Amino acid sequence: MLFRQLFDQVSSTWTYLLADPITGEALLIDPVRELLDRDLQLLVELDLKLVAVLDTHVHADHVTAAGSLREQTGAMTAASAIGAPCVDRQLRDDDEIAFGPYRLVAIETPGHTDDSLSFYFAGAPGFPAAVFTGDTLLVRGCGRTDFQNGDAGALYDSVHAKLFTLPEDTRVYPGHDYKGFTMSTIGEERRHNRRLVDRERDAFIALMAGLNLPRPRLIDEAVLANRACGRAEPVPQSA
Amino acid sequence: MLFRQLFDQVSSTWTYLLADPITGEALLIDPVRELLDRDLQLLVELDLKLVAVLDTHVHADHVTAAGSLREQTGAMTAASAIGAPCVDRQLRDDDEIAFGPYRLVAIETPGHTDDSLSFYFAGAPGFPAAVFTGDTLLVRGCGRTDFQNGDAGALYDSVHAKLFTLPEDTRVYPGHDYKGFTMSTIGEERRHNRRLVDRERDAFIALMAGLNLPRPRLIDEAVLANRACGRAEPVPQSA
Repeated sequence: MLFRQLFDQVSSTWTYLLADPITGEALLIDPVRELLDRDLQLLVELDLKLVAVLDTHVHADHVTAAGSLREQTGAMTAASAIGAPCVDRQLRDDDEIAFGPYRLVAIETPGHTDDSLSFYFAGAPGFPAAVFTGDTLLVRGCGRTDFQNGDAGALYDSVHAKLFTLPEDTRVYPGHDYKGFTMSTIGEERRHNRRLVDRERDAFIALMAGLNLPRPRLIDEAVLANRACGRAEPVPQSA
Repeated sequence: MLFRQLFDQVSSTWTYLLADPITGEALLIDPVRELLDRDLQLLVELDLKLVAVLDTHVHADHVTAAGSLREQTGAMTAASAIGAPCVDRQLRDDDEIAFGPYRLVAIETPGHTDDSLSFYFAGAPGFPAAVFTGDTLLVRGCGRTDFQNGDAGALYDSVHAKLFTLPEDTRVYPGHDYKGFTMSTIGEERRHNRRLVDRERDAFIALMAGLNLPRPRLIDEAVLANRACGRAEPVPQSA
């Protein structure tokens, strides 16, 4: 399998490109609108056909390139059924997204937001099993839980019941990183993610309630835009 | 093989951790002094023993953590024989650095600086062949050649004769990236590195001579410190 990890230095967002080199079918996870040209050029250079664009959730810190990529490549957009109403395919637990002979499997992991999904890849020759965790599980951390129906208890449950139960060697590819890490493994996070493993559920909820983080600078613009897949005309938020 | 790619957002430097999970023997390539604590903690968490710290060249944009890592872990420091006089092991073409059953092989690739090395890894189960190119070859670019005995013609020759002759699938792990790329392959760079493949040697030299880049902000401090492996007392520059 062809795999590329791409970074947005402005929002510290990781974008992931997965592709089947035989058919050329490719997926992008969490592309950033400002980096549309970089990603389109990479698809051309690698001779890939983008078949689907996935967002792990409705982001509050950057605008998705999903809608623009759909317009320019014909790719399907996909995200949680309870997130952006603009997407072509609304995903639930265990839904699969195909590229060539490969599959990503959606795992509902609410907590950072109510619509947060992780995507599981079972592995391929030369590429071990991996999970793309969005902002649910970061390397030695996790996403905040104080907006967009965030819920610290739900995040704790998602991580412990749905991610930490994956095999130890499963690679963890996060939606962001702020310390220079590119990846981790489930085993490593189970042992060393101090925020999530040093305390019981109630203490974790209390910790998250006391973080008092500043409101994301772009939240109003980004959430509205992302519910419209990043395109100019946002859909009404009443949906 | 255990592999981690680590980023310094301040200088856009990539640091690489390679380790043998059986013996725990580990190498770091191009660690950054300001991120010493992050990297030491990761070594502890992954239960690794650092055996060597490699610098691809005497950097002008950041200070190496090599000397500090040597003090704190007992690891050997290694770099080009014509670069920093402080290192324990001075490397020439084809010299090998061992970690567990694995080897990195030094390739002299002057041009960005006169002491620039690349490091070749022949591959291991689950990890394809790779070359760590420092600032000689970047994703779709290359390092500048206007200081520290830089030489555009030498860089052109290093890339075309010593790197582009590696197998197409060899992964390219650069010393820096400024556009959000983490890696490439030799085949990809041979096809799409416009700066290096669109022109003959003389035109490349003229292009590099005309870049008129600003002087690196940290060059005086960094080069002096790096010739002392990043430790407080720099050695005289007359060597």
